[in-house]
Amino acid sequence: MPLTRVALRRGKSAEYKRAILDGIYAAMREIFSVPEDDRFMLIDEYDADNIQYSYTYPSIEHSDDLLIIQLTVNNTRTIEQKKALYASIVEKLIENPGVRQEDVLINLVEVAKENWSFGIGVAQYAEA
Amino acid sequence: MPLTRVALRRGKSAEYKRAILDGIYAAMREIFSVPEDDRFMLIDEYDADNIQYSYTYPSIEHSDDLLIIQLTVNNTRTIEQKKALYASIVEKLIENPGVRQEDVLINLVEVAKENWSFGIGVAQYAEA
Amino acid sequence: MPLTRVALRRGKSAEYKRAILDGIYAAMREIFSVPEDDRFMLIDEYDADNIQYSYTYPSIEHSDDLLIIQLTVNNTRTIEQKKALYASIVEKLIENPGVRQEDVLINLVEVAKENWSFGIGVAQYAEA
Repeated sequence: MPLTRVALRRGKSAEYKRAILDGIYAAMREIFSVPEDDRFMLIDEYDADNIQYSYTYPSIEHSDDLLIIQLTVNNTRTIEQKKALYASIVEKLIENPGVRQEDVLINLVEVAKENWSFGIGVAQYAEA
Repeated sequence: MPLTRVALRRGKSAEYKRAILDGIYAAMREIFSVPEDDRFMLIDEYDADNIQYSYTYPSIEHSDDLLIIQLTVNNTRTIEQKKALYASIVEKLIENPGVRQEDVLINLVEVAKENWSFGIGVAQYAEA
Repeated sequence: MPLTRVALRRGKSAEYKRAILDGIYAAMREIFSVPEDDRFMLIDEYDADNIQYSYTYPSIEHSDDLLIIQLTVNNTRTIEQKKALYASIVEKLIENPGVRQEDVLINLVEVAKENWSFGIGVAQYAEA
């Protein structure tokens, strides 16, 4: 169910980008109990003209390797689960592909469970 | 009012992409009573490195023609209307341009009606 | 905290795009009291095939210079603040880079304050 959008500066290798998605997916599996193989992820690469970010907000030193990760997820998680997800994503991305912890910006957009259809025109989670 | 974002693998024809947007728009007109000519739609095309999707989740066989459709809409629809929208989008996209029913993933992001301005700096729906 | 996504037709100059982001950011600073340097903004440029918009809805004459601005923000603003934001963005973009007032479409997606992490794996606003 989560739909993942990652924005970053253009030019990273396929391996690097793969590792980013692998890390986010693993964290969502662990902390948000996302089902196995529930993986729908997009990467948008930006030329310098088309992405702007603070290098310092909020007292965190971002670099040009900043990842802006927007996850559309079901509205069923507690604040504690969200905090644990942020920590887990950062932990995994530090390990591989070696992102700085300051370069992981995450935003969650929450939706009702009936707001998803995974194909064949059915709201699979509405029935659950 | 709906803002439509469609993500797909790069390389489809203009005609194919046009048919996808036509089908989604027609379904929203019919089922969500979207006003005539209320059409604001974006297509993002992805190289294989930048889009990942399960081929099997949840027991639905997706192919590389998968469409990931994210619709930002007003928060005024019932679950029944949402289900009807999913079915209608799939029905229309099967017909034209001939998308497999398993290749239509849909996600709704809901917002309040005052969360839109269609120009001239006014919240057109807040007044309604 | 706001995450800004601007969609527009491909081909504008870096200076023009910079002015758009500057105007949106200044309006958010003024009306939504966004902290200084809290600036995370993306521009997506579209070929004509991949962006569709009404030229007339809702009785507003859009042109090919239409900006579709989607802002992910905290769910803490009143309707009056939202209206003021729309007016302020339009006012600033008319001034520089000279966008027509009819060409500014804005949509707000609202999230809880704990839905952000700006780095180091912490939900900075959840603590506030």
